[in-house]
Amino acid sequence: MSKELTTRAEDYSKWYNDLVVKADLADHSAVRGCMVIKPHGYAIWENIQQTLDKMFKDTGHVNAYFPLFIPKSLFEAEEKNAEGFAKECAVVTHYRLKTNPNDKTKLIVDPEAKLEEELIVRPTSEAIIWNTYKGWIQSYRDLPLLINQWANVVRWEMRTRLFLRTAEFLWQEGHTAHATKEEAIIETKQMLDVYADFVENWMAVPVVKGVKTANERFAGADDTYCIEALMQDGKALQAGTSHFLGQNFAKAFDVKFVTKENKQEFVWATSWGVSTRLMGALIMSHSDDNGLVIPPKLAPNQVVIIPIYKGDEGLAKVNEVALQIKSKLNAKGISVKYDNRDTQRPGWKFAEYELKGVPVRIAIGERDLANGTVEVARRDTLSKETVSIDGIDSLIEKLLVDIQTNLLERAKQRTQNLTTKVNSYEEFKKVLDEKTGFVLAHWDGSSETEEKIKEETKATIRCIPLNNEQEVGVCIYSGKPSTQRVLFARAY
Amino acid sequence: MSKELTTRAEDYSKWYNDLVVKADLADHSAVRGCMVIKPHGYAIWENIQQTLDKMFKDTGHVNAYFPLFIPKSLFEAEEKNAEGFAKECAVVTHYRLKTNPNDKTKLIVDPEAKLEEELIVRPTSEAIIWNTYKGWIQSYRDLPLLINQWANVVRWEMRTRLFLRTAEFLWQEGHTAHATKEEAIIETKQMLDVYADFVENWMAVPVVKGVKTANERFAGADDTYCIEALMQDGKALQAGTSHFLGQNFAKAFDVKFVTKENKQEFVWATSWGVSTRLMGALIMSHSDDNGLVIPPKLAPNQVVIIPIYKGDEGLAKVNEVALQIKSKLNAKGISVKYDNRDTQRPGWKFAEYELKGVPVRIAIGERDLANGTVEVARRDTLSKETVSIDGIDSLIEKLLVDIQTNLLERAKQRTQNLTTKVNSYEEFKKVLDEKTGFVLAHWDGSSETEEKIKEETKATIRCIPLNNEQEVGVCIYSGKPSTQRVLFARAY
Repeated sequence: MSKELTTRAEDYSKWYNDLVVKADLADHSAVRGCMVIKPHGYAIWENIQQTLDKMFKDTGHVNAYFPLFIPKSLFEAEEKNAEGFAKECAVVTHYRLKTNPNDKTKLIVDPEAKLEEELIVRPTSEAIIWNTYKGWIQSYRDLPLLINQWANVVRWEMRTRLFLRTAEFLWQEGHTAHATKEEAIIETKQMLDVYADFVENWMAVPVVKGVKTANERFAGADDTYCIEALMQDGKALQAGTSHFLGQNFAKAFDVKFVTKENKQEFVWATSWGVSTRLMGALIMSHSDDNGLVIPPKLAPNQVVIIPIYKGDEGLAKVNEVALQIKSKLNAKGISVKYDNRDTQRPGWKFAEYELKGVPVRIAIGERDLANGTVEVARRDTLSKETVSIDGIDSLIEKLLVDIQTNLLERAKQRTQNLTTKVNSYEEFKKVLDEKTGFVLAHWDGSSETEEKIKEETKATIRCIPLNNEQEVGVCIYSGKPSTQRVLFARAY
Repeated sequence: MSKELTTRAEDYSKWYNDLVVKADLADHSAVRGCMVIKPHGYAIWENIQQTLDKMFKDTGHVNAYFPLFIPKSLFEAEEKNAEGFAKECAVVTHYRLKTNPNDKTKLIVDPEAKLEEELIVRPTSEAIIWNTYKGWIQSYRDLPLLINQWANVVRWEMRTRLFLRTAEFLWQEGHTAHATKEEAIIETKQMLDVYADFVENWMAVPVVKGVKTANERFAGADDTYCIEALMQDGKALQAGTSHFLGQNFAKAFDVKFVTKENKQEFVWATSWGVSTRLMGALIMSHSDDNGLVIPPKLAPNQVVIIPIYKGDEGLAKVNEVALQIKSKLNAKGISVKYDNRDTQRPGWKFAEYELKGVPVRIAIGERDLANGTVEVARRDTLSKETVSIDGIDSLIEKLLVDIQTNLLERAKQRTQNLTTKVNSYEEFKKVLDEKTGFVLAHWDGSSETEEKIKEETKATIRCIPLNNEQEVGVCIYSGKPSTQRVLFARAY
């Protein structure tokens, strides 16, 4: 069968690439590093978007849209931010093409249409947004400003991988403005909690909440909070970040407000984002050698029904029962695809929907009809059972909840098994190489040590976990005193 | 009051610009020709998106996402399309910035990071999509391909106006692939009908469906169908287009399929789109000198409740009743904002929600409470009445339907009054200058005549209406024979 995947054991990285393309999630494009998100992948992303969008609105945020382009002079205003992104910026320099005088069928960039000031394709929108906020914020009455944007951004990455790291990606970026530091910090943490809630309870991916070290902080932030997840191969993936930006952007763009006490003060800021990278986390957390496994809460089709029959008369009989079951399931709010195409055989369809990750498959044969039963298969465990058609809607409803729970529990168990406390640098390196996963180790708090460990082992500090246990110890690298363990891993 | 608008009679164009900014719909940005869509404007756009997205899915389409950038060599493959858009293309030429050696706080484009091939920021996506479809389509079994994309596009316009014509805008673009010419034409017309249905029945804007002349056709299309609407100032606005692309893109990108009869044939194509320009049509169709008027079906808040009270005790009493009314309305699926902020007076709030176009306002005073009544005001007619709180939910539900109907009827009446049949060029020019609106006139069918009329009067042929009455006549310009009248107007 042409759709067969490389197995995870053979080559995890190739398994991922194969799966993304063969399960029709995304594809490479003619543009270096840019992907095409295919309909099946986009349908999952739409479910992610809709769920998050509701969570953002429930926490008081509204959506808006800011320009794709940032004039260079605005882009460079917040120096750390500019420096952090300068090396991966796509730059628009011209606004017109013209016919090539040497070949009338070709176009060339019109040298007379050079922009006076270059435009940066947004890698993130703090600069253009804070330049806009300057006009919107005068008084404490205008605060807080709680705005989110769904958009595409471009970061010119040299090594790209579908969903995980692409030159263009889709994301949401929240940008809020507050009258006080305290309020901005509360917002930063609130959005981290929203992300953790979503990733655990919808994507079924357990996360560690934490704060980044200075080295790993977002360029322009005073503090970066993050959620870190562990994939099946023991590598970590940063699933979302929420930044406390202090007054850095307010100062760079001169955004002040008049307080209740009639004083002028700089505004406090946060920004937070998740991207199509979440698709990578979802895929790598749950899928297996047969293909994709989608958590029921995010599956475009939660159930697929496949008829097994001979001839038109047989199909007519199965159709009737299948459509009854479909309508019962729809009435429970369950999304169902009934695939009675006659161009493909049942075996092909079984493999196809396994590959595409549909959580539950119902197969209905002519013999089943006589018995009043159907075969129900769950994608997560690949187990099958024959069940009565009576009460199938309640059974499937419960099964979808079970699958969602099982996926989270399985991933939690894996993460727990792959989280190791170590007390020496030797042990640290051994665990990274042999067991992989999260490694909890003492660190002296210096950027220098962090960088040396990274150089020597490719492991980074993923975060300092929130509510971290305080414990006296010594840095595994420098032997200097330490008060807590931090979370190391090799990461995507 | 600082928010007062220029009146339409004074200066229609200034009224529009004032309204868009003051009603918090959109704002100019630091990037030439690009707008910021503000939260209130974006909330309306989200309702437009959600409604259309459902209509697309109900007609069998799925969403996907294709790259923002198009390599120049792909862009120029379909020559007419390339020629049509070449003069308004933003071009990415570099992928990195670096520190300015003469001023460490500034950045410059890194000359060493020049792209081998320039990238065009998509003005429309036929080229990148058909280049992708080449890999997706092999057999008749892969057809039809019914895909839509929600995206931003960039067309470097020299004269821009918020929503109506901006360098960057948001839109959806459908791109479908079919095995036969007939099927592609049916799709083209189906999507025109979907657009007409949406614009008339959700936006309450009546449209004329028609087909463009060769001059006004989309670059690369064999036929362009359109819906044309008439604004309050008698100018036309193209609200949506649906293109039959023939085999032009299939030939440019060599997209062939194997038919059931095992022959190789080129694929047939359509594309269709509507954009944030629809916001301009919505605003200019219904709004008045007090501000925006939003059709209830697209209003982010369909009802606003404003309390009128003295002191905290008064507010507490009104709050109780207001929240009861709100929850009754919510139960009917009506969206309600209760504005009991104590920072603004009722008069200010009345003006504010009038400006922002909320369809229905309910004012509740302490005296009303004793009588069991409230004051209900409708935004479309500005009329008010005192009604009993009993049964208010059914009354408001009906009122919202009435307002939606009234807006459409009012706009239909206006369009009818401003549609004039003329039989001479003198009359044609007089109507354009004095009465304005749609002008139905005989035309000889030549591009030459069409261009001369455009040059001399600034009027263009908006479309040849579908199911047009056939009538013997002579061209108003050339005197040559004609078989039907076509629809002329000055247009946005």
